[in-house]
Amino acid sequence: MSKFWSPIVSVLEPYVAGEQPAIPNLVKLNTNENPYGPSPKALEAIRHAATADLRRYPDPTARRLRESIARHNGVSADEVFVGNGSDEVLAFVFASLLKHDAPLLFPDVTYSFYPTYAKLYGIETRTIPLREKFDIVIDDYDIPCGAIILPNPNAPTGIGLPLPEIERLLAAHPDQVVVIDEAYVDFGGESAVALVPRFENLLVVQTFSKSRALAGLRIGFAIGQRPLIEALERMKDSFNSYPLDTLAQAAACAAIEDDTWFEESRGKVMANRATLTRQLEERGFEVLPSQANFVFARLPGRPGADLAARLRERAVLVRHFAKPRIADFLRISIGTEDECRRLIEAVDGLL
Amino acid sequence: MSKFWSPIVSVLEPYVAGEQPAIPNLVKLNTNENPYGPSPKALEAIRHAATADLRRYPDPTARRLRESIARHNGVSADEVFVGNGSDEVLAFVFASLLKHDAPLLFPDVTYSFYPTYAKLYGIETRTIPLREKFDIVIDDYDIPCGAIILPNPNAPTGIGLPLPEIERLLAAHPDQVVVIDEAYVDFGGESAVALVPRFENLLVVQTFSKSRALAGLRIGFAIGQRPLIEALERMKDSFNSYPLDTLAQAAACAAIEDDTWFEESRGKVMANRATLTRQLEERGFEVLPSQANFVFARLPGRPGADLAARLRERAVLVRHFAKPRIADFLRISIGTEDECRRLIEAVDGLL
Repeated sequence: MSKFWSPIVSVLEPYVAGEQPAIPNLVKLNTNENPYGPSPKALEAIRHAATADLRRYPDPTARRLRESIARHNGVSADEVFVGNGSDEVLAFVFASLLKHDAPLLFPDVTYSFYPTYAKLYGIETRTIPLREKFDIVIDDYDIPCGAIILPNPNAPTGIGLPLPEIERLLAAHPDQVVVIDEAYVDFGGESAVALVPRFENLLVVQTFSKSRALAGLRIGFAIGQRPLIEALERMKDSFNSYPLDTLAQAAACAAIEDDTWFEESRGKVMANRATLTRQLEERGFEVLPSQANFVFARLPGRPGADLAARLRERAVLVRHFAKPRIADFLRISIGTEDECRRLIEAVDGLL
Repeated sequence: MSKFWSPIVSVLEPYVAGEQPAIPNLVKLNTNENPYGPSPKALEAIRHAATADLRRYPDPTARRLRESIARHNGVSADEVFVGNGSDEVLAFVFASLLKHDAPLLFPDVTYSFYPTYAKLYGIETRTIPLREKFDIVIDDYDIPCGAIILPNPNAPTGIGLPLPEIERLLAAHPDQVVVIDEAYVDFGGESAVALVPRFENLLVVQTFSKSRALAGLRIGFAIGQRPLIEALERMKDSFNSYPLDTLAQAAACAAIEDDTWFEESRGKVMANRATLTRQLEERGFEVLPSQANFVFARLPGRPGADLAARLRERAVLVRHFAKPRIADFLRISIGTEDECRRLIEAVDGLL
């Protein structure tokens, strides 16, 4: 506390990101990064853009990038909003679309940044418990509310909802914004972007950090009808005119055009996920069915914190959440084949 | 307006950045960009960092960059906060340090993003008129207030305050945060960073967009004692864990180490400013004394909007603000020698 702080500062509950330690020969499976590098065309675009022109401000509207994203998603460029990572996009979403007289709904076990945003903007929230198999049941959201946000697939469970369920949710709340946070959708989920033309209350958020392997560049986006996008634009232009730098815009444009790389990369991640799931199950783990680039797993009888600490001793980093209901679980990002093998070896060393 | 908007959205008064048009052979003197490219070492650092490692998240604390900035400013790394351009840094400053029961003070003619931030965060403000020569007089701020923010040099006037005046302001307001926004300080101003060890209420904000010629990469920073920096960190970690991407961090580290380039670049800008000022005065312009990389000038009897429009017809872009007191002025960024010459030719064509 300091006399110089605005009152809000003491109220905040800052998010804690997964650690980024410098351990030699580390198997880093704690922040859901893509184990394979980004499209070489994205790297080439960066080198091409690293010129004296960086003295210029970026395009504040990121027009070319929005056009590329629009083309790949069958919408128009003015239905696309881009930001400095999907975390920034989500911050603008919370501020501009999710604060209403009635509470915002989200699952009790979900992306742990949501309650942080809610604190930041003074948004009343109500969490809806996952069912006993850690799944989201849409009927549970059929209560008075100001807005709804759901990751699909959910994190950190990895469990996805089929599109008809999302559609049912949208139809049941025509007067509330429903945000579908699709950070992990490209690893086997079903995107709700196809529903945007039919539902004015739908906003879909995606990122280049996972399936496009560009976490280092901070590129996220939202797709929705004009009134929702306009709210985000107004917020952005009251905060920072130029959220996305020139190199990120160039790299993202190149990345989204490289379909061959994209299909190959996510194919490998999904194949590794299938193998890792089987190997963990063979060792007695319960693994939730994942549509994401991670698995959420527990070993009955072994506390998650203990498992995570022992894996760390073996230079294998996974994420553990010391939270009700999920304290026994580990969230394990899908690595390369070699990284998955080293994880399994470390697990075998513990058992 | 939309039923989906949070109430704040309708209240916002979004900032309008200088335009970035694609006119062939344009002399672009409207956004205070550096006319000379960034340090070649910064470009090399970008190319070096454009690898598969971009699949990883950046260092969320930007430790190496904060250490470089700290070393160059004689402070410790934990007294440095970095953000996605100084606009983002300022947004966090407004939210976390400038909202109090008493009004925030700033000049009536100043960076036009300040009122936008104030609207965004619901901060009560009171503007202090510049004196008749468009200068800031510190005694005018000797009134009850919650906090103070001043650019030094001021924008868009370019007029700087000597350090003893800043010190007097700090001493007169020991219980209020005083933010000195030094976006343009490297072009002849005096930085208040040297006062940080003695004044717990001082926060200095700077940017890599002007004197480091990296506007395209969005890098800003603040320097102050721990309680102020901690407020910014808490805000950032409630908004976006990773505001500064990997390439921006690498480029900024390289740029700040290149003193030779820095001295040469700002020396040229200041020399061009002296020449341009003289040439404008020879043509009847009144030019305010500038310590920035722009001049603020008017031609008696010629409305600023008209002058700006006629220069634009000649492919010379300058900034005009349709605002009380300064509607007759043009803000002209300092270009290369050639760009300044073309501006003067265009002016001669009008007279």
